[in-house]
Order: sequence, then structure tokens, then C-alpha cells
Amino acid sequence: MRNPHSNGNVPKLEEADDATEENGYGDGVILGLDGGATSTVCVCVPFFPYGDRFPEPIPILGRAVAGCTNRNSVGETAAKDSLEHVISEALSQSGSDKSHVRGVCLGVSGVNHPSDQGMVEHWIRDMFPSHVKVYVQNDAIVALASGTMGKLHGCVLIAGTGCIAYGFDEDGREARASGAGPILGDWGSGYGISAQALTAVIRAHDGRGPETMLTSTILKALGLSSPDELIGWTYADPSWARIAALVPQVVSCAEAGDEISDKILVDAADDLALSVKAVVQRLGLCGKDGTGSFPVVMVGGVLNANRKWDIGKEVSKRINEHFPGAQTIIPKVEPAVGAAWLAMNFLTVKNDVS
Amino acid sequence: MRNPHSNGNVPKLEEADDATEENGYGDGVILGLDGGATSTVCVCVPFFPYGDRFPEPIPILGRAVAGCTNRNSVGETAAKDSLEHVISEALSQSGSDKSHVRGVCLGVSGVNHPSDQGMVEHWIRDMFPSHVKVYVQNDAIVALASGTMGKLHGCVLIAGTGCIAYGFDEDGREARASGAGPILGDWGSGYGISAQALTAVIRAHDGRGPETMLTSTILKALGLSSPDELIGWTYADPSWARIAALVPQVVSCAEAGDEISDKILVDAADDLALSVKAVVQRLGLCGKDGTGSFPVVMVGGVLNANRKWDIGKEVSKRINEHFPGAQTIIPKVEPAVGAAWLAMNFLTVKNDVS
Repeated sequence: MRNPHSNGNVPKLEEADDATEENGYGDGVILGLDGGATSTVCVCVPFFPYGDRFPEPIPILGRAVAGCTNRNSVGETAAKDSLEHVISEALSQSGSDKSHVRGVCLGVSGVNHPSDQGMVEHWIRDMFPSHVKVYVQNDAIVALASGTMGKLHGCVLIAGTGCIAYGFDEDGREARASGAGPILGDWGSGYGISAQALTAVIRAHDGRGPETMLTSTILKALGLSSPDELIGWTYADPSWARIAALVPQVVSCAEAGDEISDKILVDAADDLALSVKAVVQRLGLCGKDGTGSFPVVMVGGVLNANRKWDIGKEVSKRINEHFPGAQTIIPKVEPAVGAAWLAMNFLTVKNDVS
Repeated sequence: MRNPHSNGNVPKLEEADDATEENGYGDGVILGLDGGATSTVCVCVPFFPYGDRFPEPIPILGRAVAGCTNRNSVGETAAKDSLEHVISEALSQSGSDKSHVRGVCLGVSGVNHPSDQGMVEHWIRDMFPSHVKVYVQNDAIVALASGTMGKLHGCVLIAGTGCIAYGFDEDGREARASGAGPILGDWGSGYGISAQALTAVIRAHDGRGPETMLTSTILKALGLSSPDELIGWTYADPSWARIAALVPQVVSCAEAGDEISDKILVDAADDLALSVKAVVQRLGLCGKDGTGSFPVVMVGGVLNANRKWDIGKEVSKRINEHFPGAQTIIPKVEPAVGAAWLAMNFLTVKNDVS
């Protein structure tokens, strides 16, 4: 993935005076977007030159939510429509319009390859005047930025519907692990956890596996009367998010002492920690002696569910066993704000912005 | 699933004389269909009363092949169209028409529930005169019949794109294991083996797993240059059969000594044998002392690939370790002929057919 640090030539905005009158932020606005597997969030914030101290909390001028923008999940047309809608809505709330925008940064799940990046960038570029800077990043990168105020250093682990570990070293080298979707074995994701749980129910039902509390708990949650009906339920709608929504049931069963559920969550924690370990080792984030300090930003419903069986805490424990210098960070802002910080980082060239 | 043994009232066919003139089989014809995850085969054979000795080999008057008829995979309209097409083609080849048909038996993958069965039965019934008997069965049942000349006793194991174990005891009680599709953990299927192999490539690439020969072998087979491109390839087309087609590459790597590939195949053999074990134990096919004799019919490309690393042989070995009386059968005829035998079984009431 291209690192767009060099795009620092910010054009003077003809509409800067209008912007001052309308929202009180004469330097224009920034749009930050987070496109996850379940929903897409867009925030509109004032532009601050990167390197200056950002106000805390950063003022959110507008915020809007739309559906999934992963074209692998919903197709190209639906993904593009959702993006257009959520941008217009956030701008409208902020009292700004496209002429006030200095930069847009999108973190999009499913952007795994330069050609993906180029396609999404093209969609957005068409929506704005040509001087607006557009940055498209994997959603993992904006999630990292949300824990580091836009600095690309350290590792982020996202575990929501999908999962991915992504990291940068001080020289801008990057590495990732997981994030390859359900067919390709993201077993620590919400989808992965739920698919394992559904499989355990089927195996108990047909005699291949032990009985589990998951059977009654999941059937009740879905309003089904027999495990046989799970097959039709599963394939009636291929959405990954629908399957992943069963994670709370798995956690409940594990908390109630169900061994099968406990094992599924332990395996998920192992797999998630393994993804972080792979990224940290490839980038040497822990230094030569393995004790160096670096941030690990933890994002997503699977890691931050605040349950008694705490998957995020189990993952942190495993990471710190390998890397005592790892600093686990749960971001105070959402990934879309991270995208906005990142846009400010990319837009700003030191000593070149007033 | 309903056992239609009782449907034995065969109406006298008005067109019987025509049938005699046209194809030389005055008792009319039977259509047998096998609808797998990849293709659908229809054969047209002469009707013989069940219990009589069938001629060997049974004369195939017509045979046609169409695409997938699993509505979970291709949708209802495509599934129905494929069925209509393959039936017309087989009848046309045999020189018969719908008026000569006495019974139709379809084994359809994805028929997991009485409501599924009813829907497919309804499609077919509309294509024929009302006196034609129509039987819709899970494709596993017709595969069993292909190894037992239509007798529903013992266990069948199918492992092609998908996998399932299905069995009947002497009293007509039935049981199944697996056959729940890729999300629900059919790891011994062609899809399951290939998905594990693709996952191994991704894990080796991002540092979570060991290097494997699968990387170069699979990339070469798919014409891709990097494991990163596998993600786009995998999700570009959700067809299970397309993924499952990578099994020969996994077998080649295992034969060449790749440990990761070997483990994937060993796990698959374990899982397939476990499915048979679950069915046999639930039905008590092995008798009280565990040594009773019963057939295990083995069907599908994963089991009968005739490779040096022989998955079918490994599965047989595991089955016989548990059940010394299990008789492994590789059918000499295809499952569609099993469906035809089954229709004759269902149509015939002893001493009631001349």
C-alpha cells in the first residue's frame, strides 16, 4: 500500500472566508471515514496542522452513519452509494459543503491491494473539487491512527466482524497479518468465533462432538427450534455481520462454564495474539532485545465488549507475555476520527503550513 | 426425511404400447437424477420390478449433464432451470417422452429439511403427468443406493465439493452427519481441504504459520503472482466448487512431502471417518458387540481420486479400526443410476407387480 506522506502541497482555498463565516474554522474542514464490515462512519472536523497540539476532545462538526462499504461483501454499487450518502450527511450536519473540504481520508475494509485502493480513491475523487486531497487506507490504518493521534507507529489489532493486525515501524515500513476474510481463516474475528460456535452446535447434534450449552442459547437467540434449521438460516443470507452477531451468545455460554465455548474464545485470543506477534516480529517493533516499547491499539467489538470473559484482556495478556514493552491502548475516539487525524498528518508538511 | 416405501400403486400406462415400439421396454422408463454441488446428472433406464435380478450392467437409454441444482448455491431459478433442461435432454436421447416415465427419483444436495424436499418435489411434479411418481431425496441417499443396488441399508460417505455421511438401519431409521456446508465446518470436504490450504498459504505469507509448498503450487495453478492476490481471487466468485477444485494441488504437495499439506489431508480423513462413526453408532449398524457387518459406500472425487496419497484408503482404514465388520464399497455405477434403482425400489410393492 502506498504511503502518501509526500502529499503536502495544500492549495489556498478560495472559499476560506466563507468557511470562517459558516463554521468558525477558517482553515477548512477534514472528513474522516471508517468503513467497517457492518457500518460506515463519517466525521467532519476542523483542520489543524499536524504537529500542533490538537484540542482534546477534537470538535466533531458533523457525524453520519451508513451501511457496509466493503465491495467484497455488498458489491461495488452499494458500496459507492453508501459512501456518497454518508459524506453528504456529515457535511450537511456540519454546516459545511464540499468547497470547505481540504482533505478526505477513508479507512475501508477490503482494501487489500493497490488496485482496490485506486478504485475507491477514484469513486471519492469524483465527488470533490480537484484540489481536495483524497487518501484511501485499509481500515486498520485509520484505527491505528485513532489510538496514536494520527501517528503511524506501532501495531493495531481490529477484531469486529472481521479481524486484522497492521503495523508501522518508525521508518514507515508496514506489515499486516490476518484480514483475509472468513474463507481464509480469520478465526479470531467475530465471524470466526460465531462460525466455530455454529459448527459446535451441528457437531453436537449429529454425534460428532460433545453436547454444548451453545445449542439452546443460539437456537433461542435465532428463534429456531432445531439445529437442522441452522443450515437454512446460515445460508439464507451470506452477510458476515449477521453470523458475527452471535459472539455475545458465545461469551455468555463461556461465562456460564460451557467448555466448548471457552475453548472457542481461548483459540480466538490465541489467534488474535498470533496476528499481532507476526506483525511485531516482522517490523522489529520490540527492538533487538525484545523489550522495546511500542503501542498496540485494540479496536472492535470482540476486544472491547466489557464482558466478564474479556477477550481483549486475554489477547493483551498473551501479547505482553511475548513483548513486555507493548503498551496496549484502547482509543478514546472512534476510527473515523483517526482517519481525520491521518488526513491532517498527510496534508501537513512541517514549516509549510501557517 | 420421509421414506416413500409405501408409494407402490403403479397406474397402468396408457402409452405402454408406444413405449414398447419406441424403446423396446414395455414397462416404461425411470429417470434417476444426481444433483451435486458441481453438476447434475440425469439417466433414463428401463423399469424393472425391484426384487427381480437387475441386468448387469443396467442399460442406460439416455444420459445428460447440467450445472449445479443446489438452490443454496445457485438460487431457485437457476436450480429449477437446470433440472428441467437435464430431464428433457435425457428423455430425448432415450427416444422416450414424458408419457413413458413411470417414476423419477432425484438426489439433490442441499435437501436438508422436509420443506426443501417439498419445494423440489413441486418443481418436478409440474413437469410430468399426475400419475408419475416423484421422489426427492438427499443426494447422499441416492449415492448409498448406487452402492447397494437400491437397498437402503448401511452408510454412505460422500466427499466431493461438499461432504456428508448418511445411513439407514434395517428398520428404515436414518441418521446423518456433516453435510452442513462450509460455514458449518465440513472440513473433510473438497471445499474444506482447499480452504485450509488457502489459509495455510496466507498464514505462511503474513508470518503466522510455517512456509509451505502450497504457496508456489497454488499460485501457479491459479496464475497469481502473490499470496496477497489470493484474497481478491477467493472472494471474486463465491462458488464452493471453484475453491474445492484445488484439492489435487493439496494432494500433490502432500505426496511431495509437504508437512502442512499432509496434516490437512490427515485431518480431513479423520473428520470424514468421524462422520461415518457418528452415523454408525447412532444407528447401531455395527451390532451390539461392534463387529457386525454393514456396507459403507464411498462416493466422490475426494475419496476416489486414485492418487498415491489416497484419502479414501485412509478413511477406510480409520473406519475399519473402529468397525472391523464395515465393508467398504466403491460403486460401479454413478449416483444417478442409484437414484433410478431407488425409484424402482419405491415403485415396487412385492407380489403386486408382474
